[in-house]
Amino acid sequence: MKQRAILPALALPLILAGQPARSAPADDPVATAATLRDKALAGDTVAWDLVEGLTTEVGPRMAGTEAEARARAWAVPRLKALGFSNVRIETCDMPVWTRGAERAAVTAPFPAKLAVTALGNSAATPAEGIEAEVVAFETLADLDAAPAGSLAGKIAFVSHAMTATQDGSSYGVFGAVRRRGPAVAAAKGAIAIVIRSVGTDHHRNPHAGGTVFPAGSTAIPAAALSIPDAENLQRILKRGKPVTMRLVLTPTFSATGQSGNVIAEVPGSDPAAGIITIGGHLDSWDLATGAIDDASGVAITTAAAKMVMAAGKPRRTIRVVWYGAEEVGGCGGPSYLAAHRDEKHVLTAESDFGADRVWAVKFTLPAAAAPLGDRIARALAPIGIGRNPAPATGGADIAPLVKAGVPVIDLEQDGTRYFDIHHTPDDTLDKVDPAQLRQNVAAWTTMLWLAANAPETLAAAPQK
Amino acid sequence: MKQRAILPALALPLILAGQPARSAPADDPVATAATLRDKALAGDTVAWDLVEGLTTEVGPRMAGTEAEARARAWAVPRLKALGFSNVRIETCDMPVWTRGAERAAVTAPFPAKLAVTALGNSAATPAEGIEAEVVAFETLADLDAAPAGSLAGKIAFVSHAMTATQDGSSYGVFGAVRRRGPAVAAAKGAIAIVIRSVGTDHHRNPHAGGTVFPAGSTAIPAAALSIPDAENLQRILKRGKPVTMRLVLTPTFSATGQSGNVIAEVPGSDPAAGIITIGGHLDSWDLATGAIDDASGVAITTAAAKMVMAAGKPRRTIRVVWYGAEEVGGCGGPSYLAAHRDEKHVLTAESDFGADRVWAVKFTLPAAAAPLGDRIARALAPIGIGRNPAPATGGADIAPLVKAGVPVIDLEQDGTRYFDIHHTPDDTLDKVDPAQLRQNVAAWTTMLWLAANAPETLAAAPQK
Repeated sequence: MKQRAILPALALPLILAGQPARSAPADDPVATAATLRDKALAGDTVAWDLVEGLTTEVGPRMAGTEAEARARAWAVPRLKALGFSNVRIETCDMPVWTRGAERAAVTAPFPAKLAVTALGNSAATPAEGIEAEVVAFETLADLDAAPAGSLAGKIAFVSHAMTATQDGSSYGVFGAVRRRGPAVAAAKGAIAIVIRSVGTDHHRNPHAGGTVFPAGSTAIPAAALSIPDAENLQRILKRGKPVTMRLVLTPTFSATGQSGNVIAEVPGSDPAAGIITIGGHLDSWDLATGAIDDASGVAITTAAAKMVMAAGKPRRTIRVVWYGAEEVGGCGGPSYLAAHRDEKHVLTAESDFGADRVWAVKFTLPAAAAPLGDRIARALAPIGIGRNPAPATGGADIAPLVKAGVPVIDLEQDGTRYFDIHHTPDDTLDKVDPAQLRQNVAAWTTMLWLAANAPETLAAAPQK
Repeated sequence: MKQRAILPALALPLILAGQPARSAPADDPVATAATLRDKALAGDTVAWDLVEGLTTEVGPRMAGTEAEARARAWAVPRLKALGFSNVRIETCDMPVWTRGAERAAVTAPFPAKLAVTALGNSAATPAEGIEAEVVAFETLADLDAAPAGSLAGKIAFVSHAMTATQDGSSYGVFGAVRRRGPAVAAAKGAIAIVIRSVGTDHHRNPHAGGTVFPAGSTAIPAAALSIPDAENLQRILKRGKPVTMRLVLTPTFSATGQSGNVIAEVPGSDPAAGIITIGGHLDSWDLATGAIDDASGVAITTAAAKMVMAAGKPRRTIRVVWYGAEEVGGCGGPSYLAAHRDEKHVLTAESDFGADRVWAVKFTLPAAAAPLGDRIARALAPIGIGRNPAPATGGADIAPLVKAGVPVIDLEQDGTRYFDIHHTPDDTLDKVDPAQLRQNVAAWTTMLWLAANAPETLAAAPQK
């Protein structure tokens, strides 16, 4: 299927140039959307400027910290300067986990320093660290199968190797090692756990990310090794001699932190037609400047809203939300819904999968709005975006809205290299391809203009 | 020129399979060399086992340290087990520079942690670091042009961006920023210098490497920033506000360290025909396991010597040298010549440019040995290696031998991605492509068997 092939980003303008000129009537909404789409594709600068500014002038912005607050303060004047209305911050309270010292080394049979990073919610070791024998597991299922008490006094190591997938679906499978593995190891007596990073690169940069110790479980020190270090540890273990590791992790917890959402609007002409919320998350992990996760997402959605704003007042109000505390499962998304539950949300969407090109679109729309889906799919096809018949589901930030029954559209980005970078020190501006970033803005502008001006009734399901 | 095109490594066996079978007479040396070449290409395991073993069981092995001594001790039984004769260690004394703590951060106008590593021979800051304004230079020439005293109390920053080249020639140009820049900045009053890493990657891994403070100059703290961090600093500087940086580097010097060479031989049948020395360097920088720099070089040359040994006693003695202290300009190469000056060295070669495929061969041979060069070129062409008419020069380890007039052959490796990895924490086993490693062994086996058994007189220039 040609429209779903992966095209080199720089070839897109050439391909567009090769499209026959449309001779649609002036009131054909698809033609109008296509004009805006091509304008974004050719020359949007808003998204790049936002990603460049946020990564350069703010940098890392861990949820609940001073840095995330600084990011919100940075955002407000910029959103006002772009012409958005009702720009404001809505705060929410949350506990904060803060990284401390982190070091790991194989101490026997061969000394080897390991590149390591603590997982979010990891417990701390004593300041001088712990040293214990390593017990290796190839998969989470193998760890699950370990007998009760068999890891007493040991450091568990799970080496399951993630594979890259365009749709990112492998994260669900392999991410379980990070999310669930530490609690499983703790339940079997392990005094700590290290995992092969949930990622697909080959650099000495471990992948951060949260783990979960459910109520009633014991939190233990939990960390990710870089992939080359995990592979080195596997080779050392294959020598068949007992392997011991020293691990130092000194994170701290604070019960009192503050996160928040930054909100900006393009007021619509028809209040009864409802609100469309789009956005990404403002917080990032602390090891890098969060260029692809998720400065790009807030930038893409904001640039698209700005493009629609510049085309004339839309029928529906567009609300752009830069959510707080996504990475740590914090209060951004839930507090948005709690504060705005009584408003008429008719559509939501989020961008949180990097800055590489959109290659597919999925819809979860009420039957009455099916023609809108058809128009969007038709307007996106010329820039290499195919319609995926599976339902749209949204992501973490908008999960409360989606769960409440708000219709949702997914513009699916190419995730082939996303997990090379995700949650690592390498999530920096140089990983953003300006041409692919513009293709994202073009796709979002297309979708957003058509949805904001659709004559159909969008919201069907009652909101809870 | 087809034979110089870069071919995907995995395609090599297919290309070979497509070569017409030779119908050369049994005593055609090129045909015999081709048989050995193809045997190495199809199935050498010696090189991989050495790289895997050295990186896994020894790891980083900084010149003059306990780790380098451990590497020598690791080498001896392995070379004996491979069947080499006269395996021994020849030590030499040297001063040792040892990395300490290293941290850097922009403190104003935007706080930003920077990934940094001290350059070899860097002076130390106080333990609490220094903080000063940053003065930026785009190139070393710009730094050279700064007025005397103009950097008093400042931290200099040079952002010159290296480009990748297949032949590695860009290292000469851009490497000068690292080698010479710190002394220049010191002479103009700078209290420290940071440079954009001399490298071609885009990861948060700074490139180590030595700098030089000539006698009479003042050593200052000198460090390399990772390339994404250097680019971030450039963007911050472009805002036009004063930029301050905090820098902590606490390396130490010791006057008394010991390095050494590990030597192993394949005795020849004709002592009067002289000795061929081949090898690479055993030491590595301290940030990684030195897989491509230069475990691969010692492994490739040793595997080739083993392959020639297995084909029957050669005419000439082959001496494999795993040199010490190459990275820091230490005593390995000079001490080898000092100890063996009176022996009849007739040819030398070294492998120290990674593990990617050989794409060209160069010769510096006496006229009488020109037919040997022709035979080697003919035997290498089928595996994609073209003859480069420029003279061979060798590298740092064999520079003393070459300077003394010993003929030299260069088997030039593809360096396109070498400076993505060189001297970084990323120089780990996963960067070695087994198929390309075997192609190297095939090329070296071809050259070595033909040279060791050549009927011509090889040494013409008198050795000094």
